Amino acid sequence: MNHSVEILSVGTELLLGDIVNTDAAYLARRLSEMGIPVYRQSVVGDNADRLLTAIDEAFSRSDTVILTGGLGPTCDDITKEITARYFGVDLMEDAESLTRMQAYFAAAGRTMTENNYKQCLTFEGGTVFQNDRGTAPGVAIRRDGKTAILLPGPPSELIPMFENSVVPYLSPDGVMYSLNLHLTEIGESAAEQILRPLMEQSENPTVAPYAGEDEVRIRITARAESRAEAERMCREMKETVLSYGMRDYLYAETDTPEAASDAAAHALIGALQKKGWRMAAAESCTGGMIGNRITAVSGASEVFSGSMVTYTNETKMRALGVREETLSTYDAVSEETAREMAKGALRMTDADIAVSVTGIAGPGGGTEDRPVGTVCFGLCIRDEEPTSVTVHFNPRASREKIRRQAASHAMRMVLGKVRGGEKEGKNYRK
Amino acid sequence: MNHSVEILSVGTELLLGDIVNTDAAYLARRLSEMGIPVYRQSVVGDNADRLLTAIDEAFSRSDTVILTGGLGPTCDDITKEITARYFGVDLMEDAESLTRMQAYFAAAGRTMTENNYKQCLTFEGGTVFQNDRGTAPGVAIRRDGKTAILLPGPPSELIPMFENSVVPYLSPDGVMYSLNLHLTEIGESAAEQILRPLMEQSENPTVAPYAGEDEVRIRITARAESRAEAERMCREMKETVLSYGMRDYLYAETDTPEAASDAAAHALIGALQKKGWRMAAAESCTGGMIGNRITAVSGASEVFSGSMVTYTNETKMRALGVREETLSTYDAVSEETAREMAKGALRMTDADIAVSVTGIAGPGGGTEDRPVGTVCFGLCIRDEEPTSVTVHFNPRASREKIRRQAASHAMRMVLGKVRGGEKEGKNYRK
Repeated sequence: MNHSVEILSVGTELLLGDIVNTDAAYLARRLSEMGIPVYRQSVVGDNADRLLTAIDEAFSRSDTVILTGGLGPTCDDITKEITARYFGVDLMEDAESLTRMQAYFAAAGRTMTENNYKQCLTFEGGTVFQNDRGTAPGVAIRRDGKTAILLPGPPSELIPMFENSVVPYLSPDGVMYSLNLHLTEIGESAAEQILRPLMEQSENPTVAPYAGEDEVRIRITARAESRAEAERMCREMKETVLSYGMRDYLYAETDTPEAASDAAAHALIGALQKKGWRMAAAESCTGGMIGNRITAVSGASEVFSGSMVTYTNETKMRALGVREETLSTYDAVSEETAREMAKGALRMTDADIAVSVTGIAGPGGGTEDRPVGTVCFGLCIRDEEPTSVTVHFNPRASREKIRRQAASHAMRMVLGKVRGGEKEGKNYRK
Repeated sequence: MNHSVEILSVGTELLLGDIVNTDAAYLARRLSEMGIPVYRQSVVGDNADRLLTAIDEAFSRSDTVILTGGLGPTCDDITKEITARYFGVDLMEDAESLTRMQAYFAAAGRTMTENNYKQCLTFEGGTVFQNDRGTAPGVAIRRDGKTAILLPGPPSELIPMFENSVVPYLSPDGVMYSLNLHLTEIGESAAEQILRPLMEQSENPTVAPYAGEDEVRIRITARAESRAEAERMCREMKETVLSYGMRDYLYAETDTPEAASDAAAHALIGALQKKGWRMAAAESCTGGMIGNRITAVSGASEVFSGSMVTYTNETKMRALGVREETLSTYDAVSEETAREMAKGALRMTDADIAVSVTGIAGPGGGTEDRPVGTVCFGLCIRDEEPTSVTVHFNPRASREKIRRQAASHAMRMVLGKVRGGEKEGKNYRK
């Protein structure tokens, strides 16, 4: 027994490999940042006996167990019942959960069924974490030196509940603050090699690199008595990190999980708001991903005019005014087409700046001249001539990864242009 | 002890959440398809004592344990040594592995270091699985009714080794097949309540409901001697499930994880291909998500013309020809605007059918008349007059969930229209 946390994920869909256990990775990373060791993660199915055994085993190794999943309304959802059985406590109605759930169903115009009711049950003497994104509240119980924390499985519910309720529950003394530095055009191993001495000597704040699909993120986490102090410590460490030769790669900073999950979109919206500009896109291989990522952020409507997703040559001509001879002479995947697409996007919208993307995301469609991963970009400010560039992404990457990298690249091109030379980093100077 | 397999993943980078355990999900899915039950998955770090304990615990529950990771050349890589210690056997040089590794380093023009040598060791009396994609061979040992299979961690090495060497090594007597029925306009708890008697009495095939963000999925899984027989059993059970009053809610069937992850997009592409039609979209609140989801599927280019993402009134007028007076008289979120958007999408593309979406995804922008969650849809076949409908999604759902539900609804509208009355289910008849 030691002061570690064990993660126990419950769900037959995890056990059968229908879904990947991103919850466990998220919790493990955040706990490690909080300085709480995790020595074991486990997955069990929705089976009462095996779950009870797994809980018992977990508490033989750790004094705190975080259980994810199995809080839904169906008879397969047994995590709460089995945890109550392990602790020998009863389940009782939580009035606030019931009120919230009744309001949720009334607003949705649906009838609350009897099996929804069990989601309003909590442990006798337990703690309830309300769920702002779904119907299943989280619950926790502390007894005889053992703590069980039960969280809903969907990441969209688990992540905010962990951040808002579980972090203060686990570390009531002191606050944690994390600052993410988002880097591009450098690999994780290169960043890690350069920063290793700093990572090894830093305890508070801690410094750790993470590889994303299209970026490297350096996460700086400080623990202090106040948020202001933790923030100050992180900003000081940021300057140290940048002085290790990272300044040229920095393109964005974030300090919330939402913004960190798509730093390119968040940074771009911030920069457009500051400049008072609107942007538009013309997308072929990204198929609407640029529009989708930008409009996923609340507040995008101030700065985003739209995106012309043109997947056929005929549509490129009709919706963007790309000339037939450009397509036949240079091909749909060419810088010439990309430039006409960007100009067309400005014509069809009320934007100040437009970016275009046309490329080969694969797996089919590659040629010797234009292998999979070839993507042409156009960039155009109103009343100026468009510019263009061709980027070759790794042809062995998946279709989805190439599309994501291309969309991020397009957004960073607009970001650089909108920012002009006003900030540090080479992407800021583009 | 039973004839199940347990997956034990070894690696501090997994334990700290630096990487997500996709290996475990892959192995679990393939084992389940092979009819081999998996009741537990675990993750431990690169620590000798804790790994030895975890191996011991795993063999107390299952007679076969697949260990992933920790076969590399560094001193952190201890999986082989600790497994040998558990079985009480020695490690010995494998001549073929050594020859292959020497050739690998010669071809790369690099010098083989002493710590690479330990990758050529195998168990006394063990089996070696050669690695065509990297330097670490896989190894297996069977003794006293216990089998340990050690595979390298990188998915690009693990997947081909599993398929080429481990599947024949495990040689199962049966296969498993799963059929997913995708339902809409019914909640998970309602579906579960109706199907509970069937779920409880069914052992092979099994029947289980899963809640998605915008649908309910009923998964039917059968185990049989051949895939054809398992498929036949699933199709028979499907008819039983539908006879429990589910027929009206069914909109798609899938039998691969890829298709199941976005059944609306996959079903729509299949229906368009069958009909020989192209589609287009006009998106406001979904911001490109419809285009993004359709083009995420390889092969979309045959049936998808594009999507006009129009986020401002000015762009709706320029890019779709929506009239100014329609916007001022009826508002951008109105069925009148939705119908003009759908017509405009046909004009700007070479599609046969177009769908439009305009609504309030929130969190801001709601009014008393048009609360958050109000979404208007238009649908138009070339040379016909457009139709429209308004749907009220739950205003308390997240922006992302409302957008996702709206995009799925739009795709299902097109699906119903393209299919006409040719199949069962009310979505097929729309």
